[in-house]
Amino acid sequence: MEQVLGITMGCPVGIGPEIILKFFADSPKKDGFLPVVLGDTGVLRRTASELGLAVEIVAWEPGRSMPPGSIPVRDLSALPLDRLRWGSPDAETGRAMARYIEEGVRMILAGELAGIVTCPITKKALHLAGYPYPGHTEMLADLCGAGQYIMMLAGSRLRVALVTIHEPLRRVPELLTEEKIGQCIAMTARALAVDFGISRPRIAVAALNPHGGEQGMFGREEQDMIAPAVRRSSGEYVASGPWPPDTVFYRAAAGECDAVIAMYHDQGLIPFKLLHFRDGVNVTLGLPIVRTSVDHGTAYDIAGQGKADCSSLQAAFALATRIVRNRKQRGS
Amino acid sequence: MEQVLGITMGCPVGIGPEIILKFFADSPKKDGFLPVVLGDTGVLRRTASELGLAVEIVAWEPGRSMPPGSIPVRDLSALPLDRLRWGSPDAETGRAMARYIEEGVRMILAGELAGIVTCPITKKALHLAGYPYPGHTEMLADLCGAGQYIMMLAGSRLRVALVTIHEPLRRVPELLTEEKIGQCIAMTARALAVDFGISRPRIAVAALNPHGGEQGMFGREEQDMIAPAVRRSSGEYVASGPWPPDTVFYRAAAGECDAVIAMYHDQGLIPFKLLHFRDGVNVTLGLPIVRTSVDHGTAYDIAGQGKADCSSLQAAFALATRIVRNRKQRGS
Repeated sequence: MEQVLGITMGCPVGIGPEIILKFFADSPKKDGFLPVVLGDTGVLRRTASELGLAVEIVAWEPGRSMPPGSIPVRDLSALPLDRLRWGSPDAETGRAMARYIEEGVRMILAGELAGIVTCPITKKALHLAGYPYPGHTEMLADLCGAGQYIMMLAGSRLRVALVTIHEPLRRVPELLTEEKIGQCIAMTARALAVDFGISRPRIAVAALNPHGGEQGMFGREEQDMIAPAVRRSSGEYVASGPWPPDTVFYRAAAGECDAVIAMYHDQGLIPFKLLHFRDGVNVTLGLPIVRTSVDHGTAYDIAGQGKADCSSLQAAFALATRIVRNRKQRGS
Repeated sequence: MEQVLGITMGCPVGIGPEIILKFFADSPKKDGFLPVVLGDTGVLRRTASELGLAVEIVAWEPGRSMPPGSIPVRDLSALPLDRLRWGSPDAETGRAMARYIEEGVRMILAGELAGIVTCPITKKALHLAGYPYPGHTEMLADLCGAGQYIMMLAGSRLRVALVTIHEPLRRVPELLTEEKIGQCIAMTARALAVDFGISRPRIAVAALNPHGGEQGMFGREEQDMIAPAVRRSSGEYVASGPWPPDTVFYRAAAGECDAVIAMYHDQGLIPFKLLHFRDGVNVTLGLPIVRTSVDHGTAYDIAGQGKADCSSLQAAFALATRIVRNRKQRGS
């Protein structure tokens, strides 16, 4: 039987609906998977009409076969179209958006979906709807009962995994520990092996300080925690570092390793976005479910204008199919 | 009369001599300038012989005309070739290396050179020779009597100027002030206008924290000092920001601005090295003299092996000629 991958629609007044329609219209190779939207048929139909896209949007239930060329949607909200404004989320759009995610997780756990690909949400709308999560990933981790998880950005030229994420730069040094760095290395190695199908993955660990601290002259975190974490790392992978941050990403993009462990958000995101501004994928490692995500936001400034680019969604979908296949093959 | 640009040889047992020979051998356009090496004819001749390069190395003095195709060298040391080992600097090589720089500055101030392009040195050899400077740029600033100076990395796709340089990441937030950021913006703007010949330069100022602090959730430096520094900036240029660090460099490389102000070393160097690993130039802004530099180190691991790439030296020379011309045109 064809495997089904869910695509959550994200914020109904952001660019989620538009990139989903473009994703189906572009007819990319679906790799033997059926993509099903978890969203709102009304919103999608109106978006299609506004953008002049001739598509057939059909309500879908598990097990139901679909007319060829149609867009299957698990219809989870019926938002009042007359009151919706592009770029203006409220409690109602927030609740709908949260429901797509909750239902996605439920369906995966019930065996109805092989995984989910998520479109962008905003913390603001999540909070308006009464969900106190700091973000998308934290919500998913909670719904799955996952303890540790790691954010990875994946592209064809570069993969980066982050030890710390949404923190003030000022707090980064105090948040780093040998244990956290070691955990990030191990979880990244496991994901590269299992999810990406890379045998004996090579992981380069970035230093925190310029020039890697230059023997302690510009900081001691390399000696105190990063180098020990790298030394202790073992298993069916090769970890190296700490490497000077200003060259490790160039070397990684040149093929010298399979992923870089970044100590903080911008250390990893600056080089990643430079190489993968449009087609980057955000993958959550450590969840029991398969989840990939676009790596951009709701882009309220261009929502509803037909300007959104679906490259990141296409890449996120392709990566989800790859992870599902690889996990199946490994039997994990 | 032809203008003369000095090229300091840098550490005699690093890759400086090799890239200089390759620079002359490649016969790049010299743009009407005469490049003259400030170095050691013995070291250069031995390097040429080891690398199998048939070049004529001729001792040069100000005003002397040179045989076509020869490499003019102001001979400032006579290092004992039998004792030199690639990659092993000592007090003697350190003193020679320092002398090339001192003589370069003296000659510029005496009107004998239009500027200098510097090859890499190491702090270690500088200290062995009894020079207490933390680095190349600090030494030059001291020799010229310059107070404020800014390190800029310049390439064809990206220019970045740094507010803080060789500091532990932990110290960066406490070192930033509205005044320093404002100064960096103003000095960068002036250099873009005068040295690069860009009228009404556009300067993008990076934030310190992820997402630009997200309204204070991930840090307050944006509100407390970066935004005020940008607002206060005025003159014949356009400053904007603070911009989220993970996208500002992509936008800059796409042509949306003429330079990015980075708050710390790796914020600027990571994207710069990704785009300009081989052909980046380090320019010191704020010196009374014209000085550009290769943006790589002595590379002791490959010194003497014929593997060194002279692209950065070529780019640094070309930029120095451009700055000399632009300053002359502006009469500044």
